[in-house]
Amino acid sequence: MTYCVAIQVDQGLVFAADTRTSASFDDIRVHAKLHVFDFPGERCFVLMTSGNLGTTQAVVARLRRDLEDGVTPNLRSVADLNAAADYVGQLLVAAQAQIAASAQSEGVKVGATLILGGVVAGDPPGILLVYSLGNWIAASPETPYLQIGESKYGKPILDRIIRPHTTLEDAARCALVSIDSTIRSNVSVGLPIDLAILRAGEARIGERMRLDADTPLYAEIHDTWSRKLEAAVRSLPRFPWEPATAGAPLQQAAKTPTPADAQGAQQQ
Amino acid sequence: MTYCVAIQVDQGLVFAADTRTSASFDDIRVHAKLHVFDFPGERCFVLMTSGNLGTTQAVVARLRRDLEDGVTPNLRSVADLNAAADYVGQLLVAAQAQIAASAQSEGVKVGATLILGGVVAGDPPGILLVYSLGNWIAASPETPYLQIGESKYGKPILDRIIRPHTTLEDAARCALVSIDSTIRSNVSVGLPIDLAILRAGEARIGERMRLDADTPLYAEIHDTWSRKLEAAVRSLPRFPWEPATAGAPLQQAAKTPTPADAQGAQQQ
Repeated sequence: MTYCVAIQVDQGLVFAADTRTSASFDDIRVHAKLHVFDFPGERCFVLMTSGNLGTTQAVVARLRRDLEDGVTPNLRSVADLNAAADYVGQLLVAAQAQIAASAQSEGVKVGATLILGGVVAGDPPGILLVYSLGNWIAASPETPYLQIGESKYGKPILDRIIRPHTTLEDAARCALVSIDSTIRSNVSVGLPIDLAILRAGEARIGERMRLDADTPLYAEIHDTWSRKLEAAVRSLPRFPWEPATAGAPLQQAAKTPTPADAQGAQQQ
Repeated sequence: MTYCVAIQVDQGLVFAADTRTSASFDDIRVHAKLHVFDFPGERCFVLMTSGNLGTTQAVVARLRRDLEDGVTPNLRSVADLNAAADYVGQLLVAAQAQIAASAQSEGVKVGATLILGGVVAGDPPGILLVYSLGNWIAASPETPYLQIGESKYGKPILDRIIRPHTTLEDAARCALVSIDSTIRSNVSVGLPIDLAILRAGEARIGERMRLDADTPLYAEIHDTWSRKLEAAVRSLPRFPWEPATAGAPLQQAAKTPTPADAQGAQQQ
């Protein structure tokens, strides 16, 4: 499996992807799923991939070959981000179709889903989710992030935090927490994490990092997030039967008999 | 869909369940999925249900009828919690089998999954997940919670927080946050939330609440949790290109040119 998330805020774009691929439980490998096509000052695209690795690597290889060969369309020739998504979608459909017949007989799933984001100088930046059919949807201020792969574990933190006015770095921290939560709850998603940031008004990748278990920033995020969450849970409102005093040792509350105890007797 | 979670900590058991059922997007209803069988001082069971509502209501109805009719086994006659799970599992298999043939032809899924927890006086309390085949697994100190239904959204907060030494009330707060996160990220899970607490050493339900949008406690949890999370995200480590000063307005960081900007030019 895979987990990739792209976030669009007023200050720019954040891309983050895990790197674990799994053909089965005993065939786990590390492959990059975040691919950068950067033509600084002119245009810049980030492609993140989920699904059949043969399919997605074929798409990425073809994108690079079209650029090298000067075949049009290519990522440098397309008019805008939407046209880039159309082009990527066509390559995706073609890559799937090439092996679909033999794959079906073998019971192999060849489908893939992509996130394409970036900017063409002069246009606003954007992020799009390209489906296996080649069609796509774009993020919007109401839905400022897109996910592919194992998306459920990391969705609540995005739903709570990400708004168009969220700063780019807070959005990036949120993306890292979203992936870290997914890694912790699901073995099919794993380190290292690839992170790329594109600032609004710039046609280039602004920052790029690979975070592994021994990267100080990631280790610190990983170690401190649980403590922050625990403190947040503890600071939530008391139940009616708990002492009202904020900050009182919670151990005291559990053994205090309250009128509510007696209600238990009336329930059956 | 459904989301139910049971947590076992040293201080006792927490049960929490949403109440939304959906036959389709245009057939959404409220049905209780948390059922209490309380014989105070003697024994106490909580059953939470996920899956086909006809199946789960048949199981609950049969459990109550067996108690009323004095048919054995029943929840009052079984020797211990494991025997209760065996009995509940048998009723579950029977309820599914009764309609399986006609259901298959109609394309209806009749399966259900249950969480049974509680205590028989003199035994330690426990929680078990009863599968549709009638078999079951128990929670343990290493895996101190069980979930049924739409479990992925609410799993990370449990993985981060719940340990055997977590207080009963913190575990209950965590369960509420886990369900609130799921409700926010998935429309198939909805309010109100049913909550039940059983304290270790007592053979009765200690506390029981139904929390809806206008319940002050729930409204406060719902409103403050996002703010707590946002503060937690903001307090995470700075990126290398951000000013090191903790608490500096984050807006300043995004526009500061740094050496890392230049690296973008080297990536393609």
